[in-house]
Amino acid sequence: MSESQPQRGLFVTIEGGEGVGKSTNIATIEAWLIEQGIAHCLTREPGGTALGEKIRGLLLTVEQEPVTEHAELLLVFAARAQHLRQVVEPALARGEWVICDRFTDATYAYQGAGRGLSVDFIRELEQSIQGDLRPDCTLLLDAPAAVGMSRAGERAELDRFEREQMAFFERVRDCYLARAAAEPQRFQIIDTARPLAQVTPDVCAALDRLKQATC
Amino acid sequence: MSESQPQRGLFVTIEGGEGVGKSTNIATIEAWLIEQGIAHCLTREPGGTALGEKIRGLLLTVEQEPVTEHAELLLVFAARAQHLRQVVEPALARGEWVICDRFTDATYAYQGAGRGLSVDFIRELEQSIQGDLRPDCTLLLDAPAAVGMSRAGERAELDRFEREQMAFFERVRDCYLARAAAEPQRFQIIDTARPLAQVTPDVCAALDRLKQATC
Repeated sequence: MSESQPQRGLFVTIEGGEGVGKSTNIATIEAWLIEQGIAHCLTREPGGTALGEKIRGLLLTVEQEPVTEHAELLLVFAARAQHLRQVVEPALARGEWVICDRFTDATYAYQGAGRGLSVDFIRELEQSIQGDLRPDCTLLLDAPAAVGMSRAGERAELDRFEREQMAFFERVRDCYLARAAAEPQRFQIIDTARPLAQVTPDVCAALDRLKQATC
Repeated sequence: MSESQPQRGLFVTIEGGEGVGKSTNIATIEAWLIEQGIAHCLTREPGGTALGEKIRGLLLTVEQEPVTEHAELLLVFAARAQHLRQVVEPALARGEWVICDRFTDATYAYQGAGRGLSVDFIRELEQSIQGDLRPDCTLLLDAPAAVGMSRAGERAELDRFEREQMAFFERVRDCYLARAAAEPQRFQIIDTARPLAQVTPDVCAALDRLKQATC
């Protein structure tokens, strides 16, 4: 590596079910990054590119024709392939922290545990599309499904995913927690059922630890 | 199986590179099916469903942001998953012949041989999305790449795929021919570099043989 190349940035993903406070906490994370003067790239999946946002539109629009489970899974990974090549990899190579609102853990949680698709197939897709790329750190924003759903319900119109029944979101949450338990070195769980005044310091502390561990 | 269930229809795919005369010969096939009084479903890939046609639009539109190879492959299979579930499988179950303008052989030819993506990955996707479903018969419309490209060039504006260089289409054709050689019982090769007056009788003869073999 030549001296002119910047140190590779950190790939941080933000995960959690419906209504766990992703938008609020991502705003917190952005404020922290600015405060610390860390070059960064805020992005999201599915989406983050022109093509990816169009795919996101196909996935979230409530259509007369239901999107089959396999089509949904492949659309998610198509958007991901585009996003990694166009946005995530170049930003990491420039030394930026990439903060991504949902990534492949969400695919295991929603399409795997939620919709019951083969975990082996998801793993094959992950390996083929991502190669060795995995998040350096994943902040799992966690709240009981009933808490999250009641919060999401207070927002405007529910999209197709939000209309799914509660049992689906229970499976999603259980999958996220199981993945966090299996990889404690990567995951940091933030209990977002608490008041924001308690959540925000925890998020900042997690980021502080991450910065200290890598600088 | 109850006696009221119709005999499963035949799944016939039409393959070939650019400008080999797919539209003309599919019109011939449709006329033959009507003449024979065979219930049928004409469809195409990528496409054939509302979602699939939107995906086709994403694939064929010339955008500023290039579609990465993996995104393209996964979009093709996403449209396929939707198409099989919504259109192809139901039509076959009703006893109809399904005539599909391009299918998975095209994925091996274009994304595999053309773009150089892993054939093993394509095979994994084929198995996961299609299960045991394969075409009963594939008509490969074959002409040298230079002939096809000069014909395609006479049409209006070239789409993104058509802009690819000649070497790409040589690889596509070679892949098609290799697949036909490997599965002679499934493929029927029609030389479409000849005048239409010679091609059309060959197409009809191939369909006659197919009908005789299954009735």
